Amino acid sequence: MRRAHRQLSEGILMTDQYQLTMAQLYFRQGLHNMDAQFEYFYRNNPSYGSHQAGYTVLAGTGSLLEWMAEERFTEHEIAYLRRQTGRSGKPLFHRDFLDWLLDEGHFGRIRITGLQEGRVAHPTVPLLTVQGPMAMAQILETPLLNHINYQTLIATKASRMHQAAAGRPILEFGLRRAQGYGGNAGVRGALVGGVDASSNVGISHALGIDPKGTHAHSMVQAFGALGAGEIGAFRAYAEIYPDDCLLLVDTVNTLESGIPNAITVFEELRAKGHRPVGIRLDSGDLAHLALQAALAMNRTGFTDTNIVLSNQLDEMVIWQILSQIRTEAPKLGLEPTDVVNRLVFGVGTALITSQGAPALDGVYKLTAVKDGTEWKPAIKISETPGKTINPGTKNIWRLYDKREKATCDVLAMEDERLDQAAEIHLHHPVDFQIQRTLHREDLNRIERLNIDLPQSGPASPLADTLDTMRSRREHDLACLDDGVKRLVNPHLYHISLTRSLWDLKQKLVRERCKGAGK
Amino acid sequence: MRRAHRQLSEGILMTDQYQLTMAQLYFRQGLHNMDAQFEYFYRNNPSYGSHQAGYTVLAGTGSLLEWMAEERFTEHEIAYLRRQTGRSGKPLFHRDFLDWLLDEGHFGRIRITGLQEGRVAHPTVPLLTVQGPMAMAQILETPLLNHINYQTLIATKASRMHQAAAGRPILEFGLRRAQGYGGNAGVRGALVGGVDASSNVGISHALGIDPKGTHAHSMVQAFGALGAGEIGAFRAYAEIYPDDCLLLVDTVNTLESGIPNAITVFEELRAKGHRPVGIRLDSGDLAHLALQAALAMNRTGFTDTNIVLSNQLDEMVIWQILSQIRTEAPKLGLEPTDVVNRLVFGVGTALITSQGAPALDGVYKLTAVKDGTEWKPAIKISETPGKTINPGTKNIWRLYDKREKATCDVLAMEDERLDQAAEIHLHHPVDFQIQRTLHREDLNRIERLNIDLPQSGPASPLADTLDTMRSRREHDLACLDDGVKRLVNPHLYHISLTRSLWDLKQKLVRERCKGAGK
Repeated sequence: MRRAHRQLSEGILMTDQYQLTMAQLYFRQGLHNMDAQFEYFYRNNPSYGSHQAGYTVLAGTGSLLEWMAEERFTEHEIAYLRRQTGRSGKPLFHRDFLDWLLDEGHFGRIRITGLQEGRVAHPTVPLLTVQGPMAMAQILETPLLNHINYQTLIATKASRMHQAAAGRPILEFGLRRAQGYGGNAGVRGALVGGVDASSNVGISHALGIDPKGTHAHSMVQAFGALGAGEIGAFRAYAEIYPDDCLLLVDTVNTLESGIPNAITVFEELRAKGHRPVGIRLDSGDLAHLALQAALAMNRTGFTDTNIVLSNQLDEMVIWQILSQIRTEAPKLGLEPTDVVNRLVFGVGTALITSQGAPALDGVYKLTAVKDGTEWKPAIKISETPGKTINPGTKNIWRLYDKREKATCDVLAMEDERLDQAAEIHLHHPVDFQIQRTLHREDLNRIERLNIDLPQSGPASPLADTLDTMRSRREHDLACLDDGVKRLVNPHLYHISLTRSLWDLKQKLVRERCKGAGK
Repeated sequence: MRRAHRQLSEGILMTDQYQLTMAQLYFRQGLHNMDAQFEYFYRNNPSYGSHQAGYTVLAGTGSLLEWMAEERFTEHEIAYLRRQTGRSGKPLFHRDFLDWLLDEGHFGRIRITGLQEGRVAHPTVPLLTVQGPMAMAQILETPLLNHINYQTLIATKASRMHQAAAGRPILEFGLRRAQGYGGNAGVRGALVGGVDASSNVGISHALGIDPKGTHAHSMVQAFGALGAGEIGAFRAYAEIYPDDCLLLVDTVNTLESGIPNAITVFEELRAKGHRPVGIRLDSGDLAHLALQAALAMNRTGFTDTNIVLSNQLDEMVIWQILSQIRTEAPKLGLEPTDVVNRLVFGVGTALITSQGAPALDGVYKLTAVKDGTEWKPAIKISETPGKTINPGTKNIWRLYDKREKATCDVLAMEDERLDQAAEIHLHHPVDFQIQRTLHREDLNRIERLNIDLPQSGPASPLADTLDTMRSRREHDLACLDDGVKRLVNPHLYHISLTRSLWDLKQKLVRERCKGAGK
């Protein structure tokens, strides 16, 4: 795509047309500067077919705030809107509205609160709350969903792969199968979620980490076509990268050609005082080939040289490979841990597309409008009870039991101080029959999850490093029950409403149903 | 994301690290300016679970060429590469290589041939062939795959939805569930594939079309919270957009509130001489609700007002809705065609993510290198015979039978003139037992599919309009057997090799197997 078109389509016009038609309506009605509150939440943890997530990892907030800080309506954008006509042939956007957009069309007056990036999150919980002038808060819907849905989806998938990989490094290789330039956002989400590095050069440098990679089949093919063979290709690579020599061994025949040739070159490197890095296997039965490679390399004294595995890996395949290696290694006289400890996983398509669940169903819903000084709750009723939104201005609390395990996330009215209550009455968000009371003495800790996420300053998400976000994830996962973290068929994590919020929701549903049809 | 980081990560560094390490190796070996040939092809038509594609629609070439024309290595990119170190702590990229990149690191010497954008394409057929200096042709791998895989995937999904939608308009709504900024590329692919417009403002303007959209639930909620109700929201909308009034009717209760309120407002509009556009249904049983909406609107004389349907639509759901409407309409005294002819479909997640098949497995394989003046074929052998590449410099021919239906795509050696042959001996690409001979007199037409795709001038893909690409798709689909186009369980389209190409492939496999292990 042309640079100018990228800039236009990734700027403030990266939104849906109806946000602009609604903004103009609010402007005409004098509602454009009325404070509105929107909440971001998702309804279901990603389900990948045979397996599903028991939690998500919130990601993308930093990217969103960076975007919000730089993007605003300028003459350039306004010029496009000015040209647009409706069915009558007259301009769709009127001059007074466009003049206002030019002056006030930025996100400087938007305030965001919510969970910090990298934190473990759960369905139906408002993860980000946006308050600000109705028109600009409405225009923010699409870019907010775009940034948060995708990075959260990928951070979640990466976290699952990290769980499956038994602490071994994971490299991200997915750019070629990503949705265009969106692959870059995926790398950021993957890093928050637990991946260690990426082959993607540009975004790695932008994020301040080193990209990773060695060579492709094409290099071996080229040397083959020119008569120098696989060994010629390997020697050339070792000569230029003597201390970074990682060889792809499956271009010709892994066991009969690739591994023996790699070992020959490794021996030559060793003779010159260099330490070879490893081999990469990209096809075939990866567990079987990894064991055979370990055997062959052990015989020649390369006992801790890396074995990088790639080719359609996801969390289930990684889990299966490790399980197979643990079973089969002893039969070959190998210590399973020794083999596992030299593995590195390269993941491509399955991570960058979150294969099986290619989108998070995150939404951005109006929950209150400020009439004068009073926040009035807004509700949307769905025929599916679980889709009826939780209205009003709220806080989110996480309850930790005596084992310091998170036991429940609670949605409460803004004026409720759960950390100071002796007992907490909880309602299931939908099923009126499910209620329970928790006593303070049974809890270790009550944490308010939603905090201010300012657009600048040391407390801003913009000040978070990747390490900070990764630490939050690790800490939260340590506080999550193993059952909830399970890769297959995870336990349900509890989400509850306080009694006061439940009562408000009942009241609004009743009023709205009475009002229907009028 | 910061603009500067977007620019960096969407520029020439939008590639994989190994492309750069290989490029440096070619540079050191003096091979960097040797002509190499890479081919882009995909292995399998997208399979979405219960249904699969029988063809694809090639898209993304124009975007790729736009990117190639503007991106090159500058001091900015070189500065990042200069800082990168290997495991020894020494710089990974040497000064001579970086100096060369600064001078020659652009795509000006790359020549691309292949199918024109918008054409119907099939597995294993080289859709694009890249010839040029080895180092830069190698660096192009990742960005080429990124641009072509995704847009082709989405054009294909859109084409299927277009087939299902019985000629009714389709609007693209997916930006909020896309992979970050990649959603913009998705819109372009969707338009090539048959979608009529998008809600995405920025990319629509960049592509020179009008974005589409009306209002969201939040507008009705806001008026509800402020006491004006759904009818107040509808009236406000109708007042500002009297000639573009399309109302979302499911915020409160579709049948009891939304549709009656919309009709009230439509009657008020009609009294003032305006023509209401329609309603949108975004939840519930869309076929049932569409019929009820048609009945109610017919009773008040709005017999052709649009009914826009959205909510998790894909080609199967669209097909099902139309089928249900055709069955149920007569029971309600409605003419099915009258109902169908007022429908518009809004598609979001399922299109932008190609739900069920979130990536196309397109690859970029070295097939020849030019040693002096001679192209030497390169091969990569896979243990899966279908993955062994078809070597050498080739042409692609499409054979049309007497009904002017495409019957087969043929991969041939460059010097074979299939259009001048009396008979054509064809081999299955893998199974040596499947062979056949076609006679010229049984064919209507033989078309060479791969043509020059120059980076500038009137024959360049950059000169193609969306309409041109859409016409190519329509024409090719008209020439495709109905069985191959079927949404579920499509017939297999034939791909064949000429006898000469088959013989070359046999010879190279034999030589390489002999050479293995040496």
